Amino acid sequence: MIDGRAVAALAAGAGVFGGGGGGDPGLSEMLAAHAVALHGPVPLVSLQDLDGDALLVPIAYVGATAVIQEKLPNGIEGDLIKEWMERLLGRPVAAFMSAELGGLNGVIPVAWCARAGLPMVDADLMARAFPELQMVTPTLHGQEISPVVAVDERGNVGVFTTITNEWAEKLVRATAVAMGGTATVGVYPMTVADARRVAVPGSISRSIEVGRALLASSHDPTAELVERAGAVRLIEGKLIDVHRRTKDGWPVGSAAIEGTGPDRGDVLRIEFQNENLIAIHNGEPVATVPDIITVVDIHTGRPVVTEILRYGQRVTVIALPCDRIWRTDRGLELAGPRRFGYDLDYLPLESRV
Amino acid sequence: MIDGRAVAALAAGAGVFGGGGGGDPGLSEMLAAHAVALHGPVPLVSLQDLDGDALLVPIAYVGATAVIQEKLPNGIEGDLIKEWMERLLGRPVAAFMSAELGGLNGVIPVAWCARAGLPMVDADLMARAFPELQMVTPTLHGQEISPVVAVDERGNVGVFTTITNEWAEKLVRATAVAMGGTATVGVYPMTVADARRVAVPGSISRSIEVGRALLASSHDPTAELVERAGAVRLIEGKLIDVHRRTKDGWPVGSAAIEGTGPDRGDVLRIEFQNENLIAIHNGEPVATVPDIITVVDIHTGRPVVTEILRYGQRVTVIALPCDRIWRTDRGLELAGPRRFGYDLDYLPLESRV
Repeated sequence: MIDGRAVAALAAGAGVFGGGGGGDPGLSEMLAAHAVALHGPVPLVSLQDLDGDALLVPIAYVGATAVIQEKLPNGIEGDLIKEWMERLLGRPVAAFMSAELGGLNGVIPVAWCARAGLPMVDADLMARAFPELQMVTPTLHGQEISPVVAVDERGNVGVFTTITNEWAEKLVRATAVAMGGTATVGVYPMTVADARRVAVPGSISRSIEVGRALLASSHDPTAELVERAGAVRLIEGKLIDVHRRTKDGWPVGSAAIEGTGPDRGDVLRIEFQNENLIAIHNGEPVATVPDIITVVDIHTGRPVVTEILRYGQRVTVIALPCDRIWRTDRGLELAGPRRFGYDLDYLPLESRV
Repeated sequence: MIDGRAVAALAAGAGVFGGGGGGDPGLSEMLAAHAVALHGPVPLVSLQDLDGDALLVPIAYVGATAVIQEKLPNGIEGDLIKEWMERLLGRPVAAFMSAELGGLNGVIPVAWCARAGLPMVDADLMARAFPELQMVTPTLHGQEISPVVAVDERGNVGVFTTITNEWAEKLVRATAVAMGGTATVGVYPMTVADARRVAVPGSISRSIEVGRALLASSHDPTAELVERAGAVRLIEGKLIDVHRRTKDGWPVGSAAIEGTGPDRGDVLRIEFQNENLIAIHNGEPVATVPDIITVVDIHTGRPVVTEILRYGQRVTVIALPCDRIWRTDRGLELAGPRRFGYDLDYLPLESRV
């Protein structure tokens, strides 16, 4: 069951796997905690415990995640998505799932589950965060995103059925911008049997476990991430440089961290497009997308997403191996370094650090 | 019945009532003529001849109409809209209707009717052309635009249900831009009984009649417009100045016509935003939106839409009274001069010229 304490742990843990993207938990954590307090804890169910024919709807908050601070969800979003998916597909929705693992997108489905009276599935479609809706495991398995239901906090609804998953990304992105910068979407509706084949299982319970350890740690939180999440320390230091601009609603730029303590004199540069994509240590690439690069607060271990990186922060940069499906040829074609415009081949994290 | 010759007449006539907007017939006329040649003529039916409970779907081509030259409709658009409207509303579509009167939007529904085997209703929702989807007679009667079905020539489909008609305009516009600049939409699905209350009847047959006269005229086509359509001549002359920029996909600017013949020495300036909105004769406003201001070729009487106005054209500028519903307080609030940013009160055409 996901209760208020589990929400806090999930927010802390999912953010670690978000690689700097997937949104800052902030308000989404409060919304989920409030919904759980109001409607009771949300059952977290394994794909094995659900009927194979049952219908699942992965959910994501898309657009400029920072906008959530000014443009609060209404609370009706999950219900509207459920209602429209049921109308379109002619059968009941059995559970919601996170489409993306990240501080915001891993957590906010808890709020929709609580309000709609649905369980949450212990799985997601990325096992990290990515900027576009087609960059998910179902695309690697040839599964269609349609129908997509996009809603805003006013009650406006857009439904899309597209010829490719990339077209859905384009149309939903334009709609999210027109809705004021963000939308809540239901995507890749699928049966439990399909999800067993294409989703990444266990990512929510794993995030809660890592988050619990982070919240309980009083001394060296990064050590918990190394021990429990298989993280590798890339550098510990101070943010000495941040270039960031907003492109299509996304934070794009780079940040430099100068080592302190054992890493004194070293410089790690991170290139980001929504998520952190490349880490370069003293001029040498040491980690690349789709492996996960996350900046965490040196004292708390809480992730610092790319939209709030700022000069002077004391941070540790860690990296985690991505799910192995992203290391296949199709995975790297969809979300490898070249897909983001870098003239670099992917080399697994383990081979470099 | 609308056969190939009626298509040509409709293209010529509907453009006169388009007030410089509603698109240049160009390819839409060819598409409609081709569809009629392939599938047979389209019955033009009066609202009185249809069952009151039957479902009608008004259709429009939205976005940058000039794009149609490079991005041809596929032919499936009408069928897709019909299929989705039937799926959403649970009943068969009995006929299509033009949402807007204009050279392109008055004509292209003929192509969709021919292919879908549906009759076309002798009515529309503006009795002229306007730039936005909420600027229609149903809005004046408090009728909702939803559900809207927007499709592109690739087969992508967006469905919108919105809290206001203005929100549908925003979301559909963004979707049309993302689809490559244009979309074909079904809007304001309604029963025949509703259409009898809110639509403007007879506009298609009237356009065909005016178009037939224009095409048959060998001498002074404008005289036909004065006689048959109740047009008023504002000036006859030469285009000496055109300022035009593209704003949100629409042609926005002004044109000046210097009088020749009886109007020698006079200057008429037209302000346009997609449609011609204000006509100023020697510094004095003589016609304003929602009355219809149309520039026609001096020799053929064929309308010259705002996107193809150019220096040196020999033209006659005419004005026609709008449908009286636009002269009500609600009509002027929705589509009067102030709605388009002009600090002018509407004065009916007849009171000025």
